[in-house]
Amino acid sequence: MNVLIVYAHPDPKSFDYAMLQKALEVLKREGHAVEVTDLYDLRFKAVADADDFTDPLDPLNLDMMAEQHHAAHTHTYSADILFEQRKLLWADTLILQFPLWWYSVPAIMKGWIDRVLTYGFAYGAERNMTGRRAMLVMTTGGLPASFTSDKQRTLSDMLDYLQRGTLYFCGFDVLPPFAVYGAANADADQREQFLLQYTQLLRSLAYIPPIVYV
Amino acid sequence: MNVLIVYAHPDPKSFDYAMLQKALEVLKREGHAVEVTDLYDLRFKAVADADDFTDPLDPLNLDMMAEQHHAAHTHTYSADILFEQRKLLWADTLILQFPLWWYSVPAIMKGWIDRVLTYGFAYGAERNMTGRRAMLVMTTGGLPASFTSDKQRTLSDMLDYLQRGTLYFCGFDVLPPFAVYGAANADADQREQFLLQYTQLLRSLAYIPPIVYV
Repeated sequence: MNVLIVYAHPDPKSFDYAMLQKALEVLKREGHAVEVTDLYDLRFKAVADADDFTDPLDPLNLDMMAEQHHAAHTHTYSADILFEQRKLLWADTLILQFPLWWYSVPAIMKGWIDRVLTYGFAYGAERNMTGRRAMLVMTTGGLPASFTSDKQRTLSDMLDYLQRGTLYFCGFDVLPPFAVYGAANADADQREQFLLQYTQLLRSLAYIPPIVYV
Repeated sequence: MNVLIVYAHPDPKSFDYAMLQKALEVLKREGHAVEVTDLYDLRFKAVADADDFTDPLDPLNLDMMAEQHHAAHTHTYSADILFEQRKLLWADTLILQFPLWWYSVPAIMKGWIDRVLTYGFAYGAERNMTGRRAMLVMTTGGLPASFTSDKQRTLSDMLDYLQRGTLYFCGFDVLPPFAVYGAANADADQREQFLLQYTQLLRSLAYIPPIVYV
């Protein structure tokens, strides 16, 4: 497989970073090709604006969908967006890895979603992400609350807007999310266990059935 | 009332901007005090990182919750965060106004949430937002899909992570969201109707009962 990991954590000494390194090691050992977009390391531009379009249809107004569609057809996105979109076209599997902040991705990753998964490229009649798979991988060290005793159920409900409303909408087959709860307060043994679970998941990545949306 | 409107749209000629201007006009006419945080206009820093803390507990690592808590107690957040937090403490009503991108706020507003609604300031044992009210106001010109025929129900479900998981968790009483569907393709008459609906809502803002979470 060709796996693209889009990763967002501000601290290279975090457990999240250890998970990223583990994923690189395991996936390569399994014979897969892996590319990483480390958003903090790249200082990825988070904010969608007129600078995303090098040859705008209308330089005086900013109709985001119209400009996205135009840029997709004329290949006139800014260089950083084009680079990310080329990696997406290369990949058959997308992993978004992040610390869960407010039941969502950090702003820098929301910026990647806003700027890269664009109309005319990632969704729309002409081209979309059908045939690709996507998975959310997250730590929840700062998880503020769980609303039921069934954390996994709650999480999946709370992430529906992202898994179904975003990834599945673009055509991705969405794999069940992988979450490490309380990573920030885990001891060395627990972290080793988490990495082992993640290793097992990654080794079977090609065979995990996606979520069925009806 | 003291109303803080946090606003995110890249185009000052957008319908969203017309709604913002209408809100300023109506709320002031009703005798309320209004402050605006126009995130694009401010070029608000979207990305939470070590620069958010001017006197970090640990300059070599970045434990976000620990640093947020420390900065709240020592008033050592970066100046832009302190400024936003002062406005929040002044306000009794918070309006987040934005175009709905991927069932979520634009990245620049997620950055405001990540960086301003922090541990030790907006949530936690010592201080939170209890006693304040919050409301989401959005346009959905680019709404990708509705998953049921009941758009309002779908929207409320999809926004649960934000309304309940974020705002209510911080202690805000959350008012029902106000959404303008298809603003980008609306004609002048329809836009006038939308602005009229929004005006009526704003005039009764103090009397709208919040969502009851059980």
